[in-house]
Amino acid sequence: MAPFRYTLRVRFNECDPQRVAFNANYLTYIDIAITDLYRQHFDGSYAEVMESSGVDVVVAEAKLKFLAPARFDDQIEVALTVERLGNTGMEISALICRDGDVLVTGELRYVFVEIGSWEKTPIPDQIRATMAQFGST
Amino acid sequence: MAPFRYTLRVRFNECDPQRVAFNANYLTYIDIAITDLYRQHFDGSYAEVMESSGVDVVVAEAKLKFLAPARFDDQIEVALTVERLGNTGMEISALICRDGDVLVTGELRYVFVEIGSWEKTPIPDQIRATMAQFGST
Amino acid sequence: MAPFRYTLRVRFNECDPQRVAFNANYLTYIDIAITDLYRQHFDGSYAEVMESSGVDVVVAEAKLKFLAPARFDDQIEVALTVERLGNTGMEISALICRDGDVLVTGELRYVFVEIGSWEKTPIPDQIRATMAQFGST
Amino acid sequence: MAPFRYTLRVRFNECDPQRVAFNANYLTYIDIAITDLYRQHFDGSYAEVMESSGVDVVVAEAKLKFLAPARFDDQIEVALTVERLGNTGMEISALICRDGDVLVTGELRYVFVEIGSWEKTPIPDQIRATMAQFGST
Repeated sequence: MAPFRYTLRVRFNECDPQRVAFNANYLTYIDIAITDLYRQHFDGSYAEVMESSGVDVVVAEAKLKFLAPARFDDQIEVALTVERLGNTGMEISALICRDGDVLVTGELRYVFVEIGSWEKTPIPDQIRATMAQFGST
Repeated sequence: MAPFRYTLRVRFNECDPQRVAFNANYLTYIDIAITDLYRQHFDGSYAEVMESSGVDVVVAEAKLKFLAPARFDDQIEVALTVERLGNTGMEISALICRDGDVLVTGELRYVFVEIGSWEKTPIPDQIRATMAQFGST
Repeated sequence: MAPFRYTLRVRFNECDPQRVAFNANYLTYIDIAITDLYRQHFDGSYAEVMESSGVDVVVAEAKLKFLAPARFDDQIEVALTVERLGNTGMEISALICRDGDVLVTGELRYVFVEIGSWEKTPIPDQIRATMAQFGST
Repeated sequence: MAPFRYTLRVRFNECDPQRVAFNANYLTYIDIAITDLYRQHFDGSYAEVMESSGVDVVVAEAKLKFLAPARFDDQIEVALTVERLGNTGMEISALICRDGDVLVTGELRYVFVEIGSWEKTPIPDQIRATMAQFGST
């Protein structure tokens, strides 16, 4: 079981004329789940932690495999595991599931950057300590 | 004929399982058209004009009537008329059409605000002069 | 207090460079709340009820007033009241609030249509009975 | 130079509080470009060709590398190359550029499926012949 799990419902406007969630939305779902991880596990809000650290996180790489579609009103779970915590980057794997079936797998590489310059910067300690709790065991 | 017209195509991801453009997208289409008006008719880019003036524009009110749906791949036109230019606000009417048929009508009221405080502020002269060209005649 | 209330969080991707929820998203938030009302209060899922009735609902008119912006990570509430249930249409008012402050007000007029023809059709009894519970009292 | 190129402008609502295009939108941009390829190079509209063939295309895999951000109002180009045309699938590489600088690279694998069953199905001849024109040379 992945260390962090977030549940959401597929919204009507997220589905396309094929009657399934439009593919780009899965990247959004992963972003929403990671934001929730930050929200729940940092002291203070995500926005405050990041801004007071003077850093921001950006996605550097994303690999998605689409195995089966999510449909309108489906309740889906985004399960996240921190696979690697480097100096300035981290890798997170994501499983998007419905009733235990994997619909989409994701591998995301994030880079921490200085607000303003967008230059790579070490992961702030508070963030590193929090994310380390969500590694695979 | 409305003084400003912008043409766009309905994107696949903007359509929902009813196979029509999801209703909220029409507000976005109007925003895109107004942005294009700014882009074409200001010296310098929209963003620069606004930031150098220290002001921003926000929508204060929007009324939309949905007469007929736009579908995937439809080429639609957003026709804009500046109906009123006040001290701190302006009203714009929008007709969203396909092949001359009106699909959606919109009435938008915008307010100019100071960046930072979000307090109402007079419309900058350069913006007022530009927008005045798009009044109904 | 409005008869139906739905809570959601403003997502990062729903916010624009003004750092507030982009205006079109409020129409989406109202749609999400109404969908949730359907989900919770119909026997069977929303999609099934509608499809088995052979009807669909479309927005015919929307009036929004934007009083204050919602920001990233804000928890907001969409409060809905069915103001009128006609033969083929219904009117719903919406208040989008944060901590009791009204951010956006909405008045929506919906029309029930036959799937396929998109012609107006009477509101199915099951839907009418359900919606009647959410009138103002 | 890639065989197919599509130009678009980054919309305001596609940018997030980091003031750059939100990451999921790049998947949408690639989808929009491919749809335009279909539109321009098929006899009849994309939707008609696909529906009359009884097939649909779904994304099976997507790899994106984010090298630099696109910003509001940027004019960007999505350059597509068909890298492989298999029996039921095809691979397309995408370069998303601004003024010749690569912002995002994408590798997409698509699978053709039967409408209804969503089972893999051979690429229709008309689609195969069209896509073959966009291979790397």
